[in-house]
Amino acid sequence: MKKTFKKAAIIGVGLIGGSLALALKKRKLASLVVGVSGHKETLRLARARGVIDQGSLGLDIIRGADLVVFATPVNTISELARKASSIAAEGCLVIDVGSTKEAIVNKLQGLFSNFVGTHPIAGSEKRGVAYARADIFENSLCILTPTKKTRPGALKAARSLWKSLGAKVVNLSPAGHDRAIAFVSHLPHIVVFSLMNSIPAGLLKLGAKGLKDTTRIAASDSRLWADIFLSNRYFLETVNEFQVSLSKLKKAIKAKDALLLRQLLDSARKKKEVLG
Amino acid sequence: MKKTFKKAAIIGVGLIGGSLALALKKRKLASLVVGVSGHKETLRLARARGVIDQGSLGLDIIRGADLVVFATPVNTISELARKASSIAAEGCLVIDVGSTKEAIVNKLQGLFSNFVGTHPIAGSEKRGVAYARADIFENSLCILTPTKKTRPGALKAARSLWKSLGAKVVNLSPAGHDRAIAFVSHLPHIVVFSLMNSIPAGLLKLGAKGLKDTTRIAASDSRLWADIFLSNRYFLETVNEFQVSLSKLKKAIKAKDALLLRQLLDSARKKKEVLG
Repeated sequence: MKKTFKKAAIIGVGLIGGSLALALKKRKLASLVVGVSGHKETLRLARARGVIDQGSLGLDIIRGADLVVFATPVNTISELARKASSIAAEGCLVIDVGSTKEAIVNKLQGLFSNFVGTHPIAGSEKRGVAYARADIFENSLCILTPTKKTRPGALKAARSLWKSLGAKVVNLSPAGHDRAIAFVSHLPHIVVFSLMNSIPAGLLKLGAKGLKDTTRIAASDSRLWADIFLSNRYFLETVNEFQVSLSKLKKAIKAKDALLLRQLLDSARKKKEVLG
Repeated sequence: MKKTFKKAAIIGVGLIGGSLALALKKRKLASLVVGVSGHKETLRLARARGVIDQGSLGLDIIRGADLVVFATPVNTISELARKASSIAAEGCLVIDVGSTKEAIVNKLQGLFSNFVGTHPIAGSEKRGVAYARADIFENSLCILTPTKKTRPGALKAARSLWKSLGAKVVNLSPAGHDRAIAFVSHLPHIVVFSLMNSIPAGLLKLGAKGLKDTTRIAASDSRLWADIFLSNRYFLETVNEFQVSLSKLKKAIKAKDALLLRQLLDSARKKKEVLG
């Protein structure tokens, strides 16, 4: 039987937090859903859209919740955690949905007895509760990052929650997660941001569908991504790997080595086939 | 009144050449369309799909044509041009559709009296006559690259041809074209190829929609793109610009300079808004 919560508290009612709130309500997994946001307008919109039942600018509203979800930008999660831990009910299930895990897990597992780090891979370049949808986790992937300190009961409950929302769940260590996500998500973002910055503004009108598709994620929120880039200590290693790959291609071009160049492009194409 | 051709010869019946052939026929701009390909199977398929009326492995078939289109990969255009010039009718309109222009224009304007370099921005990661469609030039952009040697009548005819096919036509110098296209097309390709090469194969299963969209063009043909990279002498300058942009972001991350980092990401986001 699926576990249901009496009161779910969502700290950070943006795209992911708002979607999680909607999904909890739609699937009747929580009797009451409350939300915390630093912005009145977000709370107003979240209530108007039926995303949350009650909202507050302060953390006091999380009192008595049996599920607490941190869904703010990653830096803010660490900033809010200590205060939240003094309010949250002992023994409540606590998860976060941050895009980097090691720093957050290290901090939050010391503050909450039933904490599990989670990362639903369901974001987009869109931001804010206006884009929240109950179905964004269906058929998506959610990475759970248990450690030796994670209680089996908490892990089971977190896993069950995400599966109830339609996600496929996999476990990785916090460090394994951060390294993997640095490659498949954070690296593509920095590469695309750099690409946009390097194209002279006057030439953008010549850009075709290929460029537009490639750079979709450049529309992503700058504060969110600055935080992510600064909070993943495996990230710069992946940027180095990318720079090495680019240098290899550049070297083949400088040497006019068509054969090597084709081999390198074929290897990229084959990986793209695997990626889909 | 739109100019029509008695016999159009398409050298290279792939995605672009085949689409051009189909568009010429659909709009009744050519009474007869013949095609040249190095591959029997391509010719068979092109005839079966009604893309060309006649096909040949050799260049002799272009004899008597009043429109000759070079639509092979860029290196092959230069290789075939001299022989084609000994067969083509004096005074026929000759265009190419290559993705780099300076080298091709320099060579072909010396061989054909009515040559105009053109670049329809209508390719995709798909390749081959199987994907040819009559409508791919509609509402697309076609860059024409006239020089001091280009005859006004030839330029007018080439412009009229592309406009008849639904393209919006702009003029650039061959060098201006190559530099611009290096930024908006060739650079995104090398960046995406490098990105795929740098991601460990075992992590691809964690890739989400963002990564898939960003890397769509990594499925592009390796021979075609190796040729393009090697034939655009402005290309490596744009790669240098990109490397500088990436280094700036990396430096801000190393320095944990969140403010500078956000500024750099915001500048990318604003350009993305302009690009669309």
